[in-house]
Amino acid sequence: MLSQPRFHLAARGDAPMIQTMSRAFEDFPIGTRLVSTGYPITADAIMDFGRKFDPQIFHHDPDAAEKTLFGGLAASGWHTAAVTMRLFVDTMDVAGGIIGMGVDELKWPNAVRPGDELRLEIQILEARHSKSRPGYGIIRIRNVTKNQSDEVVQSFMASTMLPTREADL
Amino acid sequence: MLSQPRFHLAARGDAPMIQTMSRAFEDFPIGTRLVSTGYPITADAIMDFGRKFDPQIFHHDPDAAEKTLFGGLAASGWHTAAVTMRLFVDTMDVAGGIIGMGVDELKWPNAVRPGDELRLEIQILEARHSKSRPGYGIIRIRNVTKNQSDEVVQSFMASTMLPTREADL
Repeated sequence: MLSQPRFHLAARGDAPMIQTMSRAFEDFPIGTRLVSTGYPITADAIMDFGRKFDPQIFHHDPDAAEKTLFGGLAASGWHTAAVTMRLFVDTMDVAGGIIGMGVDELKWPNAVRPGDELRLEIQILEARHSKSRPGYGIIRIRNVTKNQSDEVVQSFMASTMLPTREADL
Repeated sequence: MLSQPRFHLAARGDAPMIQTMSRAFEDFPIGTRLVSTGYPITADAIMDFGRKFDPQIFHHDPDAAEKTLFGGLAASGWHTAAVTMRLFVDTMDVAGGIIGMGVDELKWPNAVRPGDELRLEIQILEARHSKSRPGYGIIRIRNVTKNQSDEVVQSFMASTMLPTREADL
């Protein structure tokens, strides 16, 4: 699921060398849109996460789940959030790291079911250099997670911090 | 970690009977405050979650993590969110289930480190009966997760839906 790293020529001392380079702040100007690959959701993964972190019957007991509001097994919203983070990290491809600062308007408008395949749509809403931390930029993003039928299963806005190109070298 | 279920006398037909009863909407009036038990965070749990859902070096590579902003291994914010959900489910003890509707102002002001013990403080900010879904109530909560030094590692506001007493019987 990891996207391919990009390569570029960098002069280090006398000898030019090939250096692996991932993306940095400058690669995400306002208006940038990215779409992840697909992430399949299995019943086992839903139940594993549910038993560990959200032990409610609609997340880990398929039979009992049928009699609940969900009418069957459904993923914990926090499981969807975790899968979304995986898709975000892989799609952004920032080796220097992306640090979450805050999340707003986190919603789960449709249930995630066994057999669903999720993908993430990322939109860059704002981008500015950090005032307090030179070498870092702050981007505000809108992350929308959809299933294979194009239904929104999760959405949120977030501010995240990531290295600028100069900090990355 | 599960809190003790409460028992009460319920008349069912002619014979009064002892019935196990978990909590429902009516048990959480505005102003209610609850505190969870402690949840220990191990380095292995941080790295397991990181490798699976947030593969950035500060979440899964202790040596490389030392050279990052975190200065060492730190839990993914979404790991802290998942642990918080576990503490929320266990502390609220609503067998009928609690369904998350939306989360706002999710923040991670301090890093979670290996060896930390987290606990959750829940405050009920609003409580009303659902208009669209009879038999359910909606509560607005403030969830604050702290470490053993009383530092806030996560906070958010959320709206959740849960069964009323009559729906629960």
